[in-house]
Amino acid sequence: MSKKINLPKIIHDPNKMNLETVRQKNKKKKIVFIPTMGALHEGHLSLIKKGKKIKGLTIVSIFVNPIQFNDINDLKKYPNTLKKDIENLRQLKVDYLFLPNVEKIFPNNFETTVSINNLQKFLCGKNRPGHFNGVSTIVLKLFNIISPNVAIFGKKDFQQLTIVKKMVEDLNMNIKILEGSIIRESNGLAMSSRNKLLSPKNFHKASNIYKGLKYIKDEYKKGEKSSKKLIKKLEKYYIQSEIRNIDYIEIFDPLTLHSIKYVKKGAIIAIAVKIGAVRLIDNLKF
Amino acid sequence: MSKKINLPKIIHDPNKMNLETVRQKNKKKKIVFIPTMGALHEGHLSLIKKGKKIKGLTIVSIFVNPIQFNDINDLKKYPNTLKKDIENLRQLKVDYLFLPNVEKIFPNNFETTVSINNLQKFLCGKNRPGHFNGVSTIVLKLFNIISPNVAIFGKKDFQQLTIVKKMVEDLNMNIKILEGSIIRESNGLAMSSRNKLLSPKNFHKASNIYKGLKYIKDEYKKGEKSSKKLIKKLEKYYIQSEIRNIDYIEIFDPLTLHSIKYVKKGAIIAIAVKIGAVRLIDNLKF
Repeated sequence: MSKKINLPKIIHDPNKMNLETVRQKNKKKKIVFIPTMGALHEGHLSLIKKGKKIKGLTIVSIFVNPIQFNDINDLKKYPNTLKKDIENLRQLKVDYLFLPNVEKIFPNNFETTVSINNLQKFLCGKNRPGHFNGVSTIVLKLFNIISPNVAIFGKKDFQQLTIVKKMVEDLNMNIKILEGSIIRESNGLAMSSRNKLLSPKNFHKASNIYKGLKYIKDEYKKGEKSSKKLIKKLEKYYIQSEIRNIDYIEIFDPLTLHSIKYVKKGAIIAIAVKIGAVRLIDNLKF
Repeated sequence: MSKKINLPKIIHDPNKMNLETVRQKNKKKKIVFIPTMGALHEGHLSLIKKGKKIKGLTIVSIFVNPIQFNDINDLKKYPNTLKKDIENLRQLKVDYLFLPNVEKIFPNNFETTVSINNLQKFLCGKNRPGHFNGVSTIVLKLFNIISPNVAIFGKKDFQQLTIVKKMVEDLNMNIKILEGSIIRESNGLAMSSRNKLLSPKNFHKASNIYKGLKYIKDEYKKGEKSSKKLIKKLEKYYIQSEIRNIDYIEIFDPLTLHSIKYVKKGAIIAIAVKIGAVRLIDNLKF
């Protein structure tokens, strides 16, 4: 009864976390896992709420994974709101917070890389060398420590979600991957921990990212099927909205991430842009 | 009662194998796993016997892993003695034989690689590009399919054993790795499925591999500590024994596989040579 008030139980040590999940699984508890890098926003909380609907134990991890940052400055300025995060987890009645130190996860003699060779060549993988190896390696480690039955990832990081699903398939992992919808600010900007780093002016400007995606979907509905032409239209739209630093705009197959010439139902349009020093991504399904 | 006669239960499908091990683990059964590429010899059988001493279910896999063969001809001529293998497993009362098809393990769209970056740079890794990535990737897949509590590997493939142990550590896998001693033919040659490919003359010649290692250990005991000098002596010994195709002779630290200048207790001397077309390896601990 009063036990609930002390949730989440915070565990720092990977071995202790593993012992605990093994113990719980022996009691036939289902483990639902939501990995995060902290700085929790409504997007994360929606994944946790999705997890809480499943009967079982909910485990959230907060670990700012150094090996997925190809830019050391990006890592240094990554927001940290731990106290508020824990309060959020408490309110959502999350059972465990796994909060490891970087030295325990990546000791000096660590030397293993998990690589999903093809999927990482596209989209964000092009301009963030090593990023997705860093993602797949930490996710595999976390999966092995937590041994979840279900893990939940957001669709905003569409390529990450695709890569994690492929890794689970290729490595015969017995884990069900659930997908959470993109949650947006009131101005339409996709929720991201990095939004905190935007000036008010740039926050306003960034609302055009999603407006542009919706505009393109409308153009598609009106009959334009050529990916090339739709991409050109979006480029123009962004530049007119003073979003000039466009990393990529791609229209692709959701399973292979291969570009497609003509848009069809289920295809994805994804973008990455920089506004000020902040890199933002978003995507929309046709 | 009569059930025992039908062992081992043969399972081909990875999903079925996984369902079966999950079911058995839910019944609190301990899973003991011995992965092999078939063509079982006394070395493999000693690992299985070691496994049978542990209370639990014994699972042996036979899978000639194509992605660890850097030489397609080596793969093509790899011996296959399945019928005899199954008879051996039956006699040893192995509970399950996991015997998957290559298409189920590596479907066309398979694209994941697990790499233990540093340990694979030494010894056999030097001249067998991709070999150890192939080993770590298949072992990780098999571990995920079987989810063993204990897995057993032989010391003959010393680098493989070291890499598997490091992978388990780096990826936080909850698996105990046991080591089996090298089992030898009556002439001292380390047991290997490849020994079948030697002509009688070369089989005899190959007995000098181990004789040479023992000679070096004797020289060390007599006072010679210099790795360089000991390696020179062994080279000379092998050439005099008509073993001229020496891939490597190395003396190294067993954890890091780094070469050491001066031999100390616990160090390993390992060799790879070719006799005829057959590549053979062996090692000895100081």
